Amino acid sequence: MTDRPQQDSANSMWGGRFAAGPDAIMEAINASIGFDRRLYAQDIRGSRAHAAMLAAQGIISTSDADAIREGLLTVLSEIEAGDFPFRTALEDIHMNVEARLKEIIGEPAGRLHTGRSRNDQVATDFRLWVRDQCDAAIDALQALIRAALAQAEAGADWVMPGFTHLQTAQPVTWGHHMMAYVEMFGRDLSRFQDARRRMNESPLGAAALAGTGYPIDRHATAQALGFDAPMANSLDAVSDRDFALEFLSASSICAVHLSRLAEELVIWSSAQFRFVSMSDKWSTGSSIMPQKRNPDAAELIRAKIGRILGATVALFTVMKGLPLAYSKDMQEDKEQVFDAADSLMLALAAMTGMLSDLTANRDRMEAAASAGFSTATDLADWLVRELGLPFRDAHHVTGSLVALAEKKGCDLPDLSLAEMQGVHAGITDKVFGVLGVHNSVASRQSYGGTAPDQVRAQINRWKGKLA
Amino acid sequence: MTDRPQQDSANSMWGGRFAAGPDAIMEAINASIGFDRRLYAQDIRGSRAHAAMLAAQGIISTSDADAIREGLLTVLSEIEAGDFPFRTALEDIHMNVEARLKEIIGEPAGRLHTGRSRNDQVATDFRLWVRDQCDAAIDALQALIRAALAQAEAGADWVMPGFTHLQTAQPVTWGHHMMAYVEMFGRDLSRFQDARRRMNESPLGAAALAGTGYPIDRHATAQALGFDAPMANSLDAVSDRDFALEFLSASSICAVHLSRLAEELVIWSSAQFRFVSMSDKWSTGSSIMPQKRNPDAAELIRAKIGRILGATVALFTVMKGLPLAYSKDMQEDKEQVFDAADSLMLALAAMTGMLSDLTANRDRMEAAASAGFSTATDLADWLVRELGLPFRDAHHVTGSLVALAEKKGCDLPDLSLAEMQGVHAGITDKVFGVLGVHNSVASRQSYGGTAPDQVRAQINRWKGKLA
Amino acid sequence: MTDRPQQDSANSMWGGRFAAGPDAIMEAINASIGFDRRLYAQDIRGSRAHAAMLAAQGIISTSDADAIREGLLTVLSEIEAGDFPFRTALEDIHMNVEARLKEIIGEPAGRLHTGRSRNDQVATDFRLWVRDQCDAAIDALQALIRAALAQAEAGADWVMPGFTHLQTAQPVTWGHHMMAYVEMFGRDLSRFQDARRRMNESPLGAAALAGTGYPIDRHATAQALGFDAPMANSLDAVSDRDFALEFLSASSICAVHLSRLAEELVIWSSAQFRFVSMSDKWSTGSSIMPQKRNPDAAELIRAKIGRILGATVALFTVMKGLPLAYSKDMQEDKEQVFDAADSLMLALAAMTGMLSDLTANRDRMEAAASAGFSTATDLADWLVRELGLPFRDAHHVTGSLVALAEKKGCDLPDLSLAEMQGVHAGITDKVFGVLGVHNSVASRQSYGGTAPDQVRAQINRWKGKLA
Amino acid sequence: MTDRPQQDSANSMWGGRFAAGPDAIMEAINASIGFDRRLYAQDIRGSRAHAAMLAAQGIISTSDADAIREGLLTVLSEIEAGDFPFRTALEDIHMNVEARLKEIIGEPAGRLHTGRSRNDQVATDFRLWVRDQCDAAIDALQALIRAALAQAEAGADWVMPGFTHLQTAQPVTWGHHMMAYVEMFGRDLSRFQDARRRMNESPLGAAALAGTGYPIDRHATAQALGFDAPMANSLDAVSDRDFALEFLSASSICAVHLSRLAEELVIWSSAQFRFVSMSDKWSTGSSIMPQKRNPDAAELIRAKIGRILGATVALFTVMKGLPLAYSKDMQEDKEQVFDAADSLMLALAAMTGMLSDLTANRDRMEAAASAGFSTATDLADWLVRELGLPFRDAHHVTGSLVALAEKKGCDLPDLSLAEMQGVHAGITDKVFGVLGVHNSVASRQSYGGTAPDQVRAQINRWKGKLA
Repeated sequence: MTDRPQQDSANSMWGGRFAAGPDAIMEAINASIGFDRRLYAQDIRGSRAHAAMLAAQGIISTSDADAIREGLLTVLSEIEAGDFPFRTALEDIHMNVEARLKEIIGEPAGRLHTGRSRNDQVATDFRLWVRDQCDAAIDALQALIRAALAQAEAGADWVMPGFTHLQTAQPVTWGHHMMAYVEMFGRDLSRFQDARRRMNESPLGAAALAGTGYPIDRHATAQALGFDAPMANSLDAVSDRDFALEFLSASSICAVHLSRLAEELVIWSSAQFRFVSMSDKWSTGSSIMPQKRNPDAAELIRAKIGRILGATVALFTVMKGLPLAYSKDMQEDKEQVFDAADSLMLALAAMTGMLSDLTANRDRMEAAASAGFSTATDLADWLVRELGLPFRDAHHVTGSLVALAEKKGCDLPDLSLAEMQGVHAGITDKVFGVLGVHNSVASRQSYGGTAPDQVRAQINRWKGKLA
Repeated sequence: MTDRPQQDSANSMWGGRFAAGPDAIMEAINASIGFDRRLYAQDIRGSRAHAAMLAAQGIISTSDADAIREGLLTVLSEIEAGDFPFRTALEDIHMNVEARLKEIIGEPAGRLHTGRSRNDQVATDFRLWVRDQCDAAIDALQALIRAALAQAEAGADWVMPGFTHLQTAQPVTWGHHMMAYVEMFGRDLSRFQDARRRMNESPLGAAALAGTGYPIDRHATAQALGFDAPMANSLDAVSDRDFALEFLSASSICAVHLSRLAEELVIWSSAQFRFVSMSDKWSTGSSIMPQKRNPDAAELIRAKIGRILGATVALFTVMKGLPLAYSKDMQEDKEQVFDAADSLMLALAAMTGMLSDLTANRDRMEAAASAGFSTATDLADWLVRELGLPFRDAHHVTGSLVALAEKKGCDLPDLSLAEMQGVHAGITDKVFGVLGVHNSVASRQSYGGTAPDQVRAQINRWKGKLA
Repeated sequence: MTDRPQQDSANSMWGGRFAAGPDAIMEAINASIGFDRRLYAQDIRGSRAHAAMLAAQGIISTSDADAIREGLLTVLSEIEAGDFPFRTALEDIHMNVEARLKEIIGEPAGRLHTGRSRNDQVATDFRLWVRDQCDAAIDALQALIRAALAQAEAGADWVMPGFTHLQTAQPVTWGHHMMAYVEMFGRDLSRFQDARRRMNESPLGAAALAGTGYPIDRHATAQALGFDAPMANSLDAVSDRDFALEFLSASSICAVHLSRLAEELVIWSSAQFRFVSMSDKWSTGSSIMPQKRNPDAAELIRAKIGRILGATVALFTVMKGLPLAYSKDMQEDKEQVFDAADSLMLALAAMTGMLSDLTANRDRMEAAASAGFSTATDLADWLVRELGLPFRDAHHVTGSLVALAEKKGCDLPDLSLAEMQGVHAGITDKVFGVLGVHNSVASRQSYGGTAPDQVRAQINRWKGKLA
Repeated sequence: MTDRPQQDSANSMWGGRFAAGPDAIMEAINASIGFDRRLYAQDIRGSRAHAAMLAAQGIISTSDADAIREGLLTVLSEIEAGDFPFRTALEDIHMNVEARLKEIIGEPAGRLHTGRSRNDQVATDFRLWVRDQCDAAIDALQALIRAALAQAEAGADWVMPGFTHLQTAQPVTWGHHMMAYVEMFGRDLSRFQDARRRMNESPLGAAALAGTGYPIDRHATAQALGFDAPMANSLDAVSDRDFALEFLSASSICAVHLSRLAEELVIWSSAQFRFVSMSDKWSTGSSIMPQKRNPDAAELIRAKIGRILGATVALFTVMKGLPLAYSKDMQEDKEQVFDAADSLMLALAAMTGMLSDLTANRDRMEAAASAGFSTATDLADWLVRELGLPFRDAHHVTGSLVALAEKKGCDLPDLSLAEMQGVHAGITDKVFGVLGVHNSVASRQSYGGTAPDQVRAQINRWKGKLA
């Protein structure tokens, strides 16, 4: 015996928004055509490769394959022309394309689905799409690196404060600072390259989950679609979403880098810093306060890590604990990746543009670097290195000299040798070689250090890599 | 002296997607009209209240206020009729509405913005929208609770296995299990009520961030918009997004509950369990395997926690470390909340429908509850309670009786009194009163326990609450 | 027939870290005594209430109950004295306490567990612990609000720049800025109050999941433990972790507020801003650069949102899709909440201390507020309000006056009336009443605005609330 | 003029927990020795390499270097023997080691810090630690893959249901299912390898942030520590935490795989499925219900994705928007990575053990696979492939045959040829070659399909890879 409780009327059940009842709700929660239409090019590409293989293997006739492949091009051009009648009732992009193909070429359309299923088809389409995004990210990162290199090259020896805790620590150069971001974006680039290589295996031919009895040639379709190989396990092929998770993770790390640079640009644009001026293209002004320029683009870029990390968390949470093979939960994968990829590409393009148009205020930065006895550590190091003082003594001497300069209202290089020798008799006039921010940066010749020579060497290595 | 590095040509910089150059990128990252148009009704409602107040305070003329208020109704009807020409160049919904108002009523439109700014306007609009979603969530949860109550009432005494670790632990009733979800959804409901109450203060009149010198009456606009009071600090009013964070948090907790019930429905629908049958409305079938029914809706509901938690993480991350007052980062708030609210409402509606149409397989559940000596703990308890045995001894006796039953291939109530007394002489025929799953559930009369009387009392309390 | 594949030797299987084999791994993943010992006070409190109720209901003897209740106090004092021999082999705090009780009082210890199970016991203990944390958060927030009120009161009329986009927008007061945080912390406070109220129901007596056949009195134990009522459904009682999720969500929102204030303190401490000076207690200095002071505490507070949000995501993800009732996954709940609560309390205490010791640099702030024509909007408003100019014209006139002042290298109030009338003849000397930052802030008298009177009124309302 | 508001007494300010006042709070929030002591071996290794390089470059004397290097070994042995007196007042592991070194060797200890700073030291230590974890993860994944391979090899032809939506879709083999996880864990392995390679550059010698004026040899220390090269930019070297973010991301993806397998083990262990039996080592039983076995280890493994994802979100959120170079926020990096690494290693070890001890119930699985007409799609495919029927017709014929079998209460292969021909005359006795689950799996010979030959080929490829 089975039982079912008495139902309220549908109307009171759904409330206003879904007054239309169960069918409308199920369509709303179930249909994916609203978003997966973005996969149309990948879907058609995959189907064309599949049809060619079916004919080559003698599973369908050559004439059927030709009709299918030609018909799919027609569908493609309809979609790209904006003429394609997407129908929600057909649920997803795959059904929409297939149904339209049938209208165009008739009965042979039915043979396209031989030896594959929706599960491996969607896995193939989505993987192709994400692979394209890896390529786009790689291109965009190269453009961004070029923009940062141009800044670095122009300002390889412009002095600015090197901050820790947003407190001036030691002078560095603008070029050195820009090159730190080049390193970060360079790692991002290699991360997308690794992800691309790892995802570059074809799910096509895994069928529903178990493979197929048709004599298909998965290596052929893999090759036709630019994959390195077919995926080795059909269950894995339809239930794996690692490629999306890895793309999202790499995007999140990249977005962290963008957020850090964006934060610096916002702070540097403040009236209190004025290290940089944004171009009008990337900021908004005020009709009555001409000096005011809001760094809108930088702020929006800074925010994108939230959105991309959110998408990452979303897909991790969706995939948690799903039994093999396909579960409908996995339909939630696409919107997250679409949104994260769009956000990342937009942020990369905006940052590239902003950096290209950015004017660094060299004088302001140098003045800031010179304030606050920022070369006191150079002085202490010199005392240790040249006079052989123990650290503790060197610090004590330095502290006394700083106190003296502070009392006199001058900076360290402005003290006379006699004044210095009054504090420690062993000091020679060579000390002036490390005082002053230009001397300080020039002295930091260790590999990767802020000395302009080092910075230029780093720039040249990167130019070579990109060439 | 300021400097700027030489730029590459814009074209190579942006790559294909943004070949149009900086303007296209800035518009793409900056404009919000693509999503904030959803705030049109709230925007118009807020502006009408503001105009009325301005006139009442003598800040603008009554005739201007009347023109504005009437014109805004025209705009509203244009938008609702789908006739409104949204323009991306006007960036956001506020500018779109205002520009159209000016076309309709001319010069007085310019006075609408007196004593307010975009910052308090958007804060008001968005808060009104989220408040509406709290109301919608409250309604939807009440509908869902009613659906669960209907199931509980029908099956207040249907026996099913109570699981821990997905292992049968003790028998419970279907009604009891359903009522556990009623408690969860009831807490969700109260969480949205609290959130609504806490957010129900008006930012309007905070102006850009500092308040205004116009003699506005913030209490009047607050009242007109159904707020309990104006927000007490104008800086807070424009920089606060707590209401969105709290809505997202409450939605995430609710989505966890939905995911747990959805998981159970998926497991219970498996061929191995068959505790429930989904209606065709909420599942997809197979044309050739009639007994197969994929629980699509349940799986999609299960996935929504990912999406909603992702949106929650996104907004928390965006808001992290933002200085007061308004930063452009905060423009990223809306899409996250829109998406989470849509997902939640859809999941609530689908679960309500699914639960209403669900057929519980009473016989399957009772058979499963009876297997595996699920009343062994009742037996042990009886030995302690009635015979005064120490726990350890009671467990030993019970273990021996279970072993005996297992050897005989029967269940505990199928053993004879003599067989039982062979294991422990003190056992009387009263023991049969706790053996068997119906006796077991009937005996658990503690408050909130699974005894049908307790379950019915719980149902009645909830019916009273909802009445 | 069942089968099992041949195993490699255990050693090669586990690798170095777990060379001890399965038992060590299982103990490591399974035992909770390493962290749940923090629940000892709650566990003992719950057990004492349970024992008293069992005796009152005649389920155990009064002498047994007395022995149990007295013995538990001995255990409590042993733990608090650091003399308690925690044993990992006993897995959790509940078993550790019970085993020790047995050593102390012997056989009656075995009766304590009558009518309850580990599932409702741990749910009760953990809920009591989280409830205590709500109380601690409420106390800590009140202390923090007091510290912010003290700052606000001292500087109710100190002028500082009001920022949007980290660009000076309009002058505000220090008191007004501080009070914005008071509003945020006030909402946090009410959120913890709501959470506390909602969680304040007792799981005790739900037993394993189905309730019990013993004639227990759940209302009595609820009352003894300070709960408002017993939870209404025993399945829900043992499987609910909403109280932890809600505590984590409220903590995350609070941590966002702390991160925003911490970010401001870091920026304000920079050499470029110097709006505030941290006390030595909350920062670290440099032995050779006396003016350098790293805002360590502020940075660490800023970071806590990461940790707390991470804990929140962790528990949401753990709870996703768990079938009822208890699953072992739920053992992962405690460490996340412990860590988040510790982080929150520490961050609240550190911020309270930092704010109390903070020195605001009134002169620097006022100078910054006066720069950049920050009262240009006041001028434009005055032109609209007093001369009846349309907005557009008012903006044009203001822009011309700003340009004139910029050309002359002075601020707006430094222009003569004649110069002003040269731009617009209607301007009167009343205009000087809104120019200058003090006039500007004084004029913003709208409710919640930055006028010192408004700020003081807001301070007084809060003093009343806290009294 | 600067001002500070009057303070309340410290006591009321801090509340009970921090009654000791500011010092205790600052120590609690600031000190890292409680957790960073785990870096002791890496810290000592790095310092020994640094000292050797300083001597080789003539920066310190060989005798000093020898004393330092020897003294550090003494410190190491003290720590490993548990004799080391960790002091919280010394804040972190670096200071603790250095202070102890000074006690042991005296004055030369002070020269160790020449040419480096705490910033590059901690970056080096932590990077070495994370690199070790990559190696540990790689080892653990290989052990896990071996355990899965052993299961796959034993059951390469054991038939089980292949599920989609947790509904039986098509028969697959146990070996095929196990190999799907081998593919996943294989990708995890390559992800940790990529991460290790990318992080394998040395920060040492970046000094505070700008490099140093001492003639250090960063390539030498890099080589001594097993790094491929020094990091190319000193600012990046001290502010980069990509290696930690990438480790966490890879761990999260791996944890998703573990959660999916754990979920399957939990479901398969239920009384309703009984596909597998856990060994006692990995589950807990009941003293009175001998057949009950709670899959505790599987549940705890399933939960670990929550914890690891939480740690990932935490560090992403901490790093969001941090300006270069070092900020104290970054001290929050270690505990998250420590906890995630511990959780991952434990989960990998437990899953390896559980899988090794797992008994698959071959008969139960085969019976389940045979139920529900799971080869209906094979029949439809056969009709298309062999008889050339259009899909739609094939589906119709199959549906009729399933209906006939259902009516007769038998499975498809139990129908006679005559009965089949009654539905479609063209059917020949060759059809029986695809009916029945063994025929079905044997037929799926496409690359990566479930046919035992394919599965064995896949196993052999993996054995080759691991050899």
